[in-house]
Amino acid sequence: MKTVIGIDLGGTNIRAALVSAQGRVIKKINQPVGMHRSTRDSVKVIGTIVASLIQSADQKPQAIGVGVAGIVSADQGIVFASPHFPAWKNFSIKTYLQRIFSLPVFVDNDANNAALAEQWKGTAKSWPHFMMLTLGTGIGGALIINSRIVHGDHGFTGEFGHMVIQSDGPPCPCGSRGCFELYASASGLRRQMMKVPGLNFIRKLKPEDQLYALAMTARNSNKSPKRLAALRLFENMGYYLGIGLASLVNVTGVQRIVLGGGLMGASDLFLSAAKKEMKRRIYKKTAEGICIKQAQLGSDAGVLGSAFAALDGLKKS
Amino acid sequence: MKTVIGIDLGGTNIRAALVSAQGRVIKKINQPVGMHRSTRDSVKVIGTIVASLIQSADQKPQAIGVGVAGIVSADQGIVFASPHFPAWKNFSIKTYLQRIFSLPVFVDNDANNAALAEQWKGTAKSWPHFMMLTLGTGIGGALIINSRIVHGDHGFTGEFGHMVIQSDGPPCPCGSRGCFELYASASGLRRQMMKVPGLNFIRKLKPEDQLYALAMTARNSNKSPKRLAALRLFENMGYYLGIGLASLVNVTGVQRIVLGGGLMGASDLFLSAAKKEMKRRIYKKTAEGICIKQAQLGSDAGVLGSAFAALDGLKKS
Repeated sequence: MKTVIGIDLGGTNIRAALVSAQGRVIKKINQPVGMHRSTRDSVKVIGTIVASLIQSADQKPQAIGVGVAGIVSADQGIVFASPHFPAWKNFSIKTYLQRIFSLPVFVDNDANNAALAEQWKGTAKSWPHFMMLTLGTGIGGALIINSRIVHGDHGFTGEFGHMVIQSDGPPCPCGSRGCFELYASASGLRRQMMKVPGLNFIRKLKPEDQLYALAMTARNSNKSPKRLAALRLFENMGYYLGIGLASLVNVTGVQRIVLGGGLMGASDLFLSAAKKEMKRRIYKKTAEGICIKQAQLGSDAGVLGSAFAALDGLKKS
Repeated sequence: MKTVIGIDLGGTNIRAALVSAQGRVIKKINQPVGMHRSTRDSVKVIGTIVASLIQSADQKPQAIGVGVAGIVSADQGIVFASPHFPAWKNFSIKTYLQRIFSLPVFVDNDANNAALAEQWKGTAKSWPHFMMLTLGTGIGGALIINSRIVHGDHGFTGEFGHMVIQSDGPPCPCGSRGCFELYASASGLRRQMMKVPGLNFIRKLKPEDQLYALAMTARNSNKSPKRLAALRLFENMGYYLGIGLASLVNVTGVQRIVLGGGLMGASDLFLSAAKKEMKRRIYKKTAEGICIKQAQLGSDAGVLGSAFAALDGLKKS
């Protein structure tokens, strides 16, 4: 059976899978990244996972696809900078994996690969043009035109999170101010939460539990000030999401949008506010054609998309 | 000799030209639009101009290309709405011209055609990917990927002027608030000028002379408060232009930018401020590859680009 390996280095876990040419996940491995590793240590972990997947295959897989969060050159297979692998600076993950496994390696940004997965097996099957936004700690993005990922000049397309939506807004780690992801992501919600004294109790929880607690508070059936404050935070986030989506539609002319990422688990709390504000911000003629869908593949999107990138890369090479 | 007709309905003039297949302008006609015309009257004027160009050609031209400011469907050749032809609502200029002249007609947004011209005969000859911004009363835009205009789902790509850069900014006629073109266009400059009492004398001039007077005031060699105020207005405009350009580069990944439009006559007064702010707002790795060039073709860009669209359309049909 023809198989490839898909690797997703997009979040707090290293995910990898052996995937059939038809898109079936045959075997899957997840392992926490562990921040602050040296390049050597982190690639060793990745190498061990890949080796174990190769061993479990009937026949040797034909290629490896990798999706990495951060600034990535798909052409060269180089990771210039990644939030989850701070030690990787201009690191060629492509050369490294090619050398060890003697297999063709295809590297891209994780959001691009997630979009490929939604196009291959998910919600965007019939869409030649679409945008994908992953709402998580930040906002990842991908732009698909004529069924192909747009990479731009150096592969940096889709940094939607760093579109400025409030010129005099708070500073962003990217160097700018008032970036979209400071308002419409999990970190944006957390920043706003800090300003509401009534929600102090949430701040005492572990960071990974805070958003869940905030969503549960907002979904409460009572009319307590806490509930209203939590609800308002999500609606406010939706308001800014709508502004950003309107801008993206105006710039790209692409009216089909897939929303994914962990924050979509709370979409009941912000999506209608987002749609309302987006409509208000856009020409009527343009607004008519807009279609927003929720990503279907969840945490498998990364490995499936990387597998697709590998299969597609083989076809073209 | 093989010729086509290029029409530019982008500004206060109807421009049309007989153009050779090599891109030589053989004959050119300009005529003021005259606002508030009925659809019937305005198309009659256009028809007369085209007829006169056809008569002056050795052989009948092979096609007509049209660029229209506003919301245009290139596929269907329909103008949904145009600022210079307010009476045109869902008007098929394509069908109209085809019927009269029995020639194939190719319609697109005027900014898209201007970008085609810069790619064909201007400053973007060697650029497979670029963005074009026309800084005039508003901000027009075009996105070129793999040497082709991106049209998006319904041909609305490139509404760069309606990207939001200040969520709580002033209302925009498009329905949104804080749009890019409220800050970094001629109308943006004029709006800011209203707030400076020392520049009252400029407001008394005819609207079409105001920006020229403002630029001359800013270029004065003295250090009068008027001069400093005018200078500050242009620098402020450059600041916002830089913010918008940074966002566009982050979204599209395209690092090559052509700036055109009437406001570029004052680029000495705002371009360095724009570049400075853009660099500050963008990842270092992305900023490295950015290249900004001034459009070369001036007021001929429209007719040349429309001619190119006609030639290109013939090739594909």
